Amino acid sequence: MPELRRDPVTGRWVIISTDRQKRPNDFRIERAIILGRDQCPFCPGRESLTPPEVLSYRQNGGPPNGPGWDLRVVPNKFPALQVEGTLERIGEGMFDRMSGIGAHEVVIETTDHAKTFSTMSEGEIARVLWAFRDRVHDLKNDIRFRCILLFKNHGAGAGATLEHGHSQLIALPIVPNFVREELDGARRHFQDKERCVFCDIIRQETSAARRLIHENTDVVAIAPYASRVPFETWVLPRNHASKYEDASRHVIDSLAGMLKTLVARIERALEKPPYNLIIHSAPLHEDAAGYFHWHVELMPRISRVAGFEWGSGFYINPTSPEEATEVLRAVRL
Amino acid sequence: MPELRRDPVTGRWVIISTDRQKRPNDFRIERAIILGRDQCPFCPGRESLTPPEVLSYRQNGGPPNGPGWDLRVVPNKFPALQVEGTLERIGEGMFDRMSGIGAHEVVIETTDHAKTFSTMSEGEIARVLWAFRDRVHDLKNDIRFRCILLFKNHGAGAGATLEHGHSQLIALPIVPNFVREELDGARRHFQDKERCVFCDIIRQETSAARRLIHENTDVVAIAPYASRVPFETWVLPRNHASKYEDASRHVIDSLAGMLKTLVARIERALEKPPYNLIIHSAPLHEDAAGYFHWHVELMPRISRVAGFEWGSGFYINPTSPEEATEVLRAVRL
Repeated sequence: MPELRRDPVTGRWVIISTDRQKRPNDFRIERAIILGRDQCPFCPGRESLTPPEVLSYRQNGGPPNGPGWDLRVVPNKFPALQVEGTLERIGEGMFDRMSGIGAHEVVIETTDHAKTFSTMSEGEIARVLWAFRDRVHDLKNDIRFRCILLFKNHGAGAGATLEHGHSQLIALPIVPNFVREELDGARRHFQDKERCVFCDIIRQETSAARRLIHENTDVVAIAPYASRVPFETWVLPRNHASKYEDASRHVIDSLAGMLKTLVARIERALEKPPYNLIIHSAPLHEDAAGYFHWHVELMPRISRVAGFEWGSGFYINPTSPEEATEVLRAVRL
Repeated sequence: MPELRRDPVTGRWVIISTDRQKRPNDFRIERAIILGRDQCPFCPGRESLTPPEVLSYRQNGGPPNGPGWDLRVVPNKFPALQVEGTLERIGEGMFDRMSGIGAHEVVIETTDHAKTFSTMSEGEIARVLWAFRDRVHDLKNDIRFRCILLFKNHGAGAGATLEHGHSQLIALPIVPNFVREELDGARRHFQDKERCVFCDIIRQETSAARRLIHENTDVVAIAPYASRVPFETWVLPRNHASKYEDASRHVIDSLAGMLKTLVARIERALEKPPYNLIIHSAPLHEDAAGYFHWHVELMPRISRVAGFEWGSGFYINPTSPEEATEVLRAVRL
């Protein structure tokens, strides 16, 4: 059974997800071995290679766990957390832990092994975003969960181990530190000024335009003022809303269009880098409606930079957001 | 001129260190190209390839910037921050920045291109640790600096770009968030209990011994309870002290011996992985004497895991610290 453990100094929770099968000589550096088309468990006709689906979209009907789907959501075959069981909270001397209860699911984005966000249609991307929305609404009913992470790792350099386009979801019984830090900061700003900090950012960036990459009816894409990595990009809904899962069909469609153009621009400008995409949304049972503003953070991964951050603990970004904005705007699609 | 910029939501500072020479088609993924022996600027006889030294140890004498040294400290040739200039603090609408004032130095650990912490003598490692101590005492006199990061990236996978053994130092006019988080946590524990949290950890871990990897007269090495990555290791001085730079010769020697055995054990158990080592010490002008406890954190870098953390923002560790302790203890050196 995996465990959630709390660091007694910083309060940071981590998942310790041990596999008792491992033997000492198994601790080698995990080289990214990406499963190609021949062995892909996500391609149509190989449905039996994944755990049974928790959601699928099938325009042409057909029974679960067989072909005919457009998108599938399945539990991760090697989950970091376990969905069955009671959430036990245990003190061990000065240390705190919980049983590793949670959900770890995979969204198989399309039937096409090779499609990416830049080659998928806007409708296909919108379907992925809608699947996230559907899954959050379902998992929310489980009172054990307090936070759901929605993310996509694209490319081996960003942590992906399968080539076939997919996204992931982790539902947690705790709120991770990086979420808490963002919430606390947004709350402080609101307490000071009676305004949402993200709304302020949108106002300032759309009027000055030096870090405004692209905008459409419902969402704006900016290079954040204090970008951590080259070409870091945030996409924010224009209208204030704290919870991603309450976004309307219209906003989801606009977001899909925006992600398609951003990924295409980044791939063109940077030679198809690996990237991570995380949806930042308010935790499930906290009233952050006034001060938090959901958004998407997209981080291209350019190796040396990340290595430096690991070493120093501190982000050093060799590309200013103004420069990144210019480059991304200039891309001809 | 580089800039320090503050994220208006989280308060996180980052360095934006632009190089105006760059052109759009230069934004490619930086593959780690490690400079080998032939072109190594750190080997003896090539002193003119580095900026002039700020410190050197020369048992056999000899003038600066020529051969005859045992260890050299030089400014980084491509510094993230700039040492000359006044620290200007600028508000730009809702955003905050400072001029990118700071020091970025490199410790060239030995004359031998190929030596690592596992093949260096304890005396040679102690010399590196002493050089850090000397540099902090010097840089402390510069009132612009508030925090000094001391760290080592070993191997391309951990962000190193040169093969020749070296460590780094960055002096900053701000306190980074990850340092602040640790300080705040330690202060809360002290306020609650009138005890240092790290002293409590040492007491619990040396009595239970399940996560105690190794100990000597002055320092103990543990696998932290909430380890973020497999084989994460902390080395703490037994006696409470908040500032690394005040460590005695005896403690530095004990730490050197400990680091040598730990790196040797990790290299044996894990097939010479890349790793990062960071010294956590109290910021320069804050009175954290009662509640903070300096220590060293050693993080082996096993690729897939780090990729996952990037994606989710959350650490998932497949190896428990108890398992890592057993493996490292069992290594025969």
